[in-house]
Amino acid sequence: MKQHHTSDGFQRYKAVRKHTERLCSNLQTEDFVVQASEEVSPTKWHLAHTTWFFETFLLKPHLSSYTEFHPRYSYLFNSYYNAVGARTHRFHRGLMTRPTVSEIMAYRAHVNQEMEILLSIRQGEEIDSLLELGINHEQQHQELLITDLKYNLSYNPLHPEVLDIGEYLSEQQQGWETIPEGAYEIGFSGDGFSYDNEHGRHKVLLEAFNISKALVTNGEYLEFIRAGGYQNVDLWLSDGWDWAKKNNMKHPLYWWERDGGFQCYTLAGMKKLDPDAPVAHVSYYEAAAYAEWAGCRLPTEFQWEAASDRLDWGQRWEWTNSAYLPYPRYQKALGAIGEYNGKFMINQMVLRGASVATPEGHSRSTYRNFFPP
Amino acid sequence: MKQHHTSDGFQRYKAVRKHTERLCSNLQTEDFVVQASEEVSPTKWHLAHTTWFFETFLLKPHLSSYTEFHPRYSYLFNSYYNAVGARTHRFHRGLMTRPTVSEIMAYRAHVNQEMEILLSIRQGEEIDSLLELGINHEQQHQELLITDLKYNLSYNPLHPEVLDIGEYLSEQQQGWETIPEGAYEIGFSGDGFSYDNEHGRHKVLLEAFNISKALVTNGEYLEFIRAGGYQNVDLWLSDGWDWAKKNNMKHPLYWWERDGGFQCYTLAGMKKLDPDAPVAHVSYYEAAAYAEWAGCRLPTEFQWEAASDRLDWGQRWEWTNSAYLPYPRYQKALGAIGEYNGKFMINQMVLRGASVATPEGHSRSTYRNFFPP
Amino acid sequence: MKQHHTSDGFQRYKAVRKHTERLCSNLQTEDFVVQASEEVSPTKWHLAHTTWFFETFLLKPHLSSYTEFHPRYSYLFNSYYNAVGARTHRFHRGLMTRPTVSEIMAYRAHVNQEMEILLSIRQGEEIDSLLELGINHEQQHQELLITDLKYNLSYNPLHPEVLDIGEYLSEQQQGWETIPEGAYEIGFSGDGFSYDNEHGRHKVLLEAFNISKALVTNGEYLEFIRAGGYQNVDLWLSDGWDWAKKNNMKHPLYWWERDGGFQCYTLAGMKKLDPDAPVAHVSYYEAAAYAEWAGCRLPTEFQWEAASDRLDWGQRWEWTNSAYLPYPRYQKALGAIGEYNGKFMINQMVLRGASVATPEGHSRSTYRNFFPP
Amino acid sequence: MKQHHTSDGFQRYKAVRKHTERLCSNLQTEDFVVQASEEVSPTKWHLAHTTWFFETFLLKPHLSSYTEFHPRYSYLFNSYYNAVGARTHRFHRGLMTRPTVSEIMAYRAHVNQEMEILLSIRQGEEIDSLLELGINHEQQHQELLITDLKYNLSYNPLHPEVLDIGEYLSEQQQGWETIPEGAYEIGFSGDGFSYDNEHGRHKVLLEAFNISKALVTNGEYLEFIRAGGYQNVDLWLSDGWDWAKKNNMKHPLYWWERDGGFQCYTLAGMKKLDPDAPVAHVSYYEAAAYAEWAGCRLPTEFQWEAASDRLDWGQRWEWTNSAYLPYPRYQKALGAIGEYNGKFMINQMVLRGASVATPEGHSRSTYRNFFPP
Repeated sequence: MKQHHTSDGFQRYKAVRKHTERLCSNLQTEDFVVQASEEVSPTKWHLAHTTWFFETFLLKPHLSSYTEFHPRYSYLFNSYYNAVGARTHRFHRGLMTRPTVSEIMAYRAHVNQEMEILLSIRQGEEIDSLLELGINHEQQHQELLITDLKYNLSYNPLHPEVLDIGEYLSEQQQGWETIPEGAYEIGFSGDGFSYDNEHGRHKVLLEAFNISKALVTNGEYLEFIRAGGYQNVDLWLSDGWDWAKKNNMKHPLYWWERDGGFQCYTLAGMKKLDPDAPVAHVSYYEAAAYAEWAGCRLPTEFQWEAASDRLDWGQRWEWTNSAYLPYPRYQKALGAIGEYNGKFMINQMVLRGASVATPEGHSRSTYRNFFPP
Repeated sequence: MKQHHTSDGFQRYKAVRKHTERLCSNLQTEDFVVQASEEVSPTKWHLAHTTWFFETFLLKPHLSSYTEFHPRYSYLFNSYYNAVGARTHRFHRGLMTRPTVSEIMAYRAHVNQEMEILLSIRQGEEIDSLLELGINHEQQHQELLITDLKYNLSYNPLHPEVLDIGEYLSEQQQGWETIPEGAYEIGFSGDGFSYDNEHGRHKVLLEAFNISKALVTNGEYLEFIRAGGYQNVDLWLSDGWDWAKKNNMKHPLYWWERDGGFQCYTLAGMKKLDPDAPVAHVSYYEAAAYAEWAGCRLPTEFQWEAASDRLDWGQRWEWTNSAYLPYPRYQKALGAIGEYNGKFMINQMVLRGASVATPEGHSRSTYRNFFPP
Repeated sequence: MKQHHTSDGFQRYKAVRKHTERLCSNLQTEDFVVQASEEVSPTKWHLAHTTWFFETFLLKPHLSSYTEFHPRYSYLFNSYYNAVGARTHRFHRGLMTRPTVSEIMAYRAHVNQEMEILLSIRQGEEIDSLLELGINHEQQHQELLITDLKYNLSYNPLHPEVLDIGEYLSEQQQGWETIPEGAYEIGFSGDGFSYDNEHGRHKVLLEAFNISKALVTNGEYLEFIRAGGYQNVDLWLSDGWDWAKKNNMKHPLYWWERDGGFQCYTLAGMKKLDPDAPVAHVSYYEAAAYAEWAGCRLPTEFQWEAASDRLDWGQRWEWTNSAYLPYPRYQKALGAIGEYNGKFMINQMVLRGASVATPEGHSRSTYRNFFPP
Repeated sequence: MKQHHTSDGFQRYKAVRKHTERLCSNLQTEDFVVQASEEVSPTKWHLAHTTWFFETFLLKPHLSSYTEFHPRYSYLFNSYYNAVGARTHRFHRGLMTRPTVSEIMAYRAHVNQEMEILLSIRQGEEIDSLLELGINHEQQHQELLITDLKYNLSYNPLHPEVLDIGEYLSEQQQGWETIPEGAYEIGFSGDGFSYDNEHGRHKVLLEAFNISKALVTNGEYLEFIRAGGYQNVDLWLSDGWDWAKKNNMKHPLYWWERDGGFQCYTLAGMKKLDPDAPVAHVSYYEAAAYAEWAGCRLPTEFQWEAASDRLDWGQRWEWTNSAYLPYPRYQKALGAIGEYNGKFMINQMVLRGASVATPEGHSRSTYRNFFPP
C-alpha cells in the first residue's frame, strides 16, 4: 500500500478509534452480541477485530515491551488471514458471549495505550505504512459495523433506534452528463493511502456515453415495483430471477409493506418511505433489472471513474457493470497482508462511490468496493 | 391435569420463580442472549416465556385489573401455542436483543406482584390447577434452561464456568434386579400434579426380565469407544449409523479429545473425564448401539416403570425402547393447553427418570419425558 | 425365519420369478431405468437385486459348480447388506445405464437355470429355508417394484399406462366391530413362512374398543379436504404440520386438481377420482389428521391384529398407531440375513394388512410392514 | 445474428443433423435416458430439444401446412425460453421415460422432412438467418451432448465405451509469444455466422504481454498436485478454496486414483493418464490456482483474442481471466431469441478457443463461451 507521512499519526489514530466507539454509544450490551447471518459480524467482533489488527501487525512485531492482552484473543479475532494461524468458525462469532463487551473495551484501551508508546518511540516508513493501513482498516470496519448492525437489529421485532447517520438525505444533482470518447486513465495515483486493488494505473478506451447525475430514488423504484418489475422475468438476469424467486423478493431489503404503503427500517427507527431519497440496499440483480426496465444500463467501473469528477457522488455505493478482477500488473502483497484483496477477485461485482455510512476521509474516486451480486 | 390444593400457593410460586433466577446468578448479560441451534433457546427467552405463561393463562383471563407489561411480549414469548396467536420464528429468538435482560427482569417482577394480588383475591380449583401447571411448566423450563445454556456456552471458546449442579456425581447402586412376569399398572394415580400424557392408567403384561441398577459409566462407555463402537455398523440402527456418520460422531457431545485422553465441558468448566460417573448426553442411537455391544437391550418404558421402586433413579434421564405414543383413553385437553403434549406424539422416544438438572419435587416414576432419538 | 417344506420348491420359485417379469410386460426399455427419489429404486434394479439374492445366499455358498454371471454384479445389486461387502450409493441406482435391461434378463435366466440345478441336487432344511426367504423376498420386491414404478412414472408428463392391478376396487364391508377387553396373543405361530419381526408371540392386554370394518373412502377424505383439513393446525401432529407445510400438501400423493375436481394417476393411467374407493397413498401424518378430524384414533397394531379375523382386509396397507419396535425375545439373525429387519426399528410406524399390489399368498394377519410417518 | 447465405441450406442442415445422430450410434437405449445432475441433460433431451428449435422457430411460423408431431412436445423440450411458454422442471428431464428414444428419432425424421419442404418453397434473409441459428444451435448442443454424456456415464460403475473423439491428442506447439502494446480490435466482424455476444466490435488497449503457445499438460498439473497444490490455501481464490474443500477435490474431474497412479474416464473407456496430453475438465478455480502456483496469470479474453492468430488453439476450451459481460453497444435481440445470451451475463467467466468436442466449422477466434467458475 502507498504510505502516508503521519507526523500526527497518533492523533489520527485516536480520532478514528474514538469514532468507532461513538457509533456504539446508544447500544445496549445485548445489541453487541448477535449475528443474524454468516455474512455479517456482531458489533462486538468489529470492535475487537480492528484492535487485533493493530496488536498483530504493529505491536507484536514492533514493540518489544508489548505483552498481549489475552492469549486467546489472537485466535478469536482473526478474520480470514489464514497466514496468521487458526481462527474460529465464522458463523460462531455470534455465539461468543465471552469476552464480554466491557472486556473488549478494556482490550481496546490496552492496545491504545501501547500504540501511543509505540508511536512515540518508533518511526519510519514501515510503521507509518502499517499505521495507515490499520486506520483505513478500522474505517472500513466502521462502515461494516453500521451495515451489519442494521442487518442484525432488523430482525428485532421491537425495531430499536440506535444511530442517526442521515440515511435519508434527499437532495441530489439532476440531469445527465455526456462523456466523450477517449482513452482514460484508470487507477490510483498520488500520495495518499490506497489499496493494492486500485494500483496498476492504466489507460482504458471508452466510447462516448451518457451518465445520470442523479441516483435512482425510492419513488422511481416504487414505479418499477408497481409496474410489476419483480414479476417480469424478461427484465432479470437468469441468476437474478432465481435469487428473487428463492427469496420471495417483492421489494428491497428493509422495506416493510404496511397499510398499502411502505415503511423502511433505519438505525434511527422505522420511517415512512421518502420518495425523494435515493434507493438503498438493492442487490446487483435488482439494480440490473431496474436499469433494464428503465431502458438504461449500469455504467462500467471505468465509465464511472472517468465521469466521477462531474458527479456529486457519496450518498450510496453504486453498482457498476464490472466484475471485480485484477488490474494489469496487479500483485498480491507478500504475507498475511496479501490476503486482503486478491483472493476475493471472483464472483463479485464492483461498486464505486461511497455511502452515508462511509467515514469522512475514507473515500476516493478510484476506490473499488465489491460485493456478490 | 390433576390439581393440587395450594393454600400456600404463592409461597411455592415465589420459591420456584426465585430458583429460576438463582440458576442465572453467575451469568454475564451477554450469556443470556445467544442461541446456538434452532432446538435450543436463549436463557433470556426461558425467563420471559415462563413469565408469559402466567400472564397469559392466569393474569389476563382471571385478574380483571391486570394491565399487560408490554403489548408486544405476547407475540415475542409465545412458544408453540398456535391457538394463542402469531409468534416469532423459533430460530430468531437468539436475535432479539430487545427486550434486554433487565427489562425481562422487570417483566418478571411485574408479573410476580400481580400474581400475588391474584392469588390473594381469587381461589378455587381452576386457579389452583392453572397455578400448578404454571409452576410445573417453569420447573420443566429450569431443566431446559440448564440444558440449553450448556449447549449455548459450549460453543464459547473460553469455556465459561457459570453453574455447579454436581453433574459429576459418581456413587451408584450396583447389580441387577429380576422383575417377575406379571400384569403391572402403568400410568399416574394419586393426588399430586401430573401431565395428561401420564394419564390413562392401565395394565400391561410383562414377561420376566432383569434390569441393571447401575447406570452405564463413562469408563464403560470409553471401552465401547476403544473397541471401535463408532466404526462398527453392525451395532447401530440404520438411522443411527447415518446420523453418526453425517455428524462425524466419535464420542458423546461435550467430550473433547485432548492429549490422548478426554475432557468434558460442564457448566462448572472443563473437567477431566471421570470414569466412575454415569455417562451423559448420549443420543438414543448411541445408547442403543452401546446396549447392542454390551449384549443387552434398553428396557421399555413399561419395564422401567414396573422396576422403578427398586432403582435409585434420578441422576440421568434414561432412554427406553418405547416410542412416545398415547396411553389408552388419552385425550388432548381443550384449547391452547391441549397443545402441550399430544401433538408431539410421533418420532420421539420416551425417557424415564430424572437428571441432576431436574428441580427438586419435579420428578416421579410415571413421568414421560421424550426426545427425538 | 421359519421354514416351509418345499418338495415342489422349484415350481413355486419359477412361478414367482415369472410373475415379477409379467408385471413389467408393458414397460418400454426406458421405463426400467429411472429413479425419481432416493427412497425408490428403478424397476431394473428390483429385477437384478432379487436375482442377486438367490445368487448370493443360495448359489454361491451351496452350488460348488456355480460360476457367477458377472464379477461386478455383486457390488451393483447389493442393497443394504453391509456384511456382504461394498455397495453402490443408493441414489446412483438410477444412473446405472449398464447392465442393460436385456443383460439383466439374461442374468435372471442364468440364475434360474442354476437354481434348477441346485434344487435338483441339494435338499434339506437350510436350502428350503433360504429358498423360502428368497421367494418371500422377491414377493416383497414385487410390491415395491409396483410402488416405486408408480412413483417413478408419475413424474412423466405423458402419464403412461403400463399395468392394471385394480387399484380402484370399491366394494367394502360396512359398519363397526366391537372387540371385548382381554389378553390377546400377538405374533406369528404356525408352520408357514414368517419374518423374524413377527416372532416372539406374546400376550397383550387390550381394553374394549370399536374398530371400523370399512376403510376411509376418497369421498370421505375429500370432505376432510373441503372442510379445510390441510389448513387446520389443530388436527395435525407437530411434525406432520411441518411436513405438510414444507411439501405444500393440499391432497394425497397422485391426486391432481383439474377443472375443480380431482384426477388420480394410476398405473393404468389417469382416472377420475372414485369417491367410493378406499383412499390410498396417504402418509401417517395425513391418516392421523384425518382421524383427529373424524373424532377417531388409529388402532394400535395389537388392536388391529386382535380384530383382524373380523375385518375383510387386504385392499390397502393400514397405518397403525404403533411404532415399529421389537417384540419381547426378538433376536437379530446372525450374519447378513440379520440386517433384514432389526436395524430399521426406529422412526417408523407399523402398517398392517396388505394392498392390491401385494402378491397372492404373501399376506398374513401377523405381518408387520413399516414406513416412516 | 449475422446471416449467412445458404443456397445449399438443406444440405448443411442434413449433414449437421446426421452428425448429431452419429455421435449416439454406439449408445444403448438406456444410455439416452439418465441425468446425473441438474446442470446436465439426457442425450435424449438434446436430440429432441434441437429438433424442437427448428419446429418452433422455423416450421410453425413459416410453413403453413405444418402439423406438429405431438401436442405436448413443445412443453417437454423447451429449455429456458420463458417467452415461448411453460416448460418442464429442469431436473425432471432425466425422469421422462416417454417419449422413448425411438419416438424421438421419429420426431427428428418428421421435422427433417418438413424442413426439406420449407426450404424448397421459402427463401429469403429471415429463413436463412433462422436456419443458420438453428444449425449453430444444434452444433452447440453436439458439444453439450458429448460433455453431458461423459458426465452421465461417468457415474456408471461399468465405465462404458461409446465414442472416440480423440480426447487425448497430445501434440502441441511449444514456447511463448510476445504481444506488443497496442489498441486491438475485439469482437466479430465479417460475413459468417456469429452470436450477439460477439458483436459490438471495439478497441481495447493492451499493455505488452507474453502468452504460452502450449496448453498445461497432465504431467505439469500432476506436479502441482504432488507439490500439495490442493492443500495450499495461498494459491486459491477464496471461493475456490471453499469449493475445493466442500467437494473434497484432490484432482480434476474424471481422474481416478488407482494403485498409486491415475486413470482417466473418457468416452472411449478408462485410460492411463497421458502426461503429455493437455489437462481437461478443470474448473476456473483449479486453473487459477495452478496459474498462481506456476507464477503466471490467466490471460484476459482480450489478450487471448489479440494473440489468437499466433496460437494453435482448438484442443481445449481455455479459461480466461474475464467475466462474461456485455460488449459496448450490446443489445438483446427481441423476443425468445433474445433469451439466448444476455440473461446469463453474470457470475460466469469467459472461455475462449474450442475443444475436441466442438464440431468442425463451429469455432472462431471471437467466440465467447462461458461457464460458472
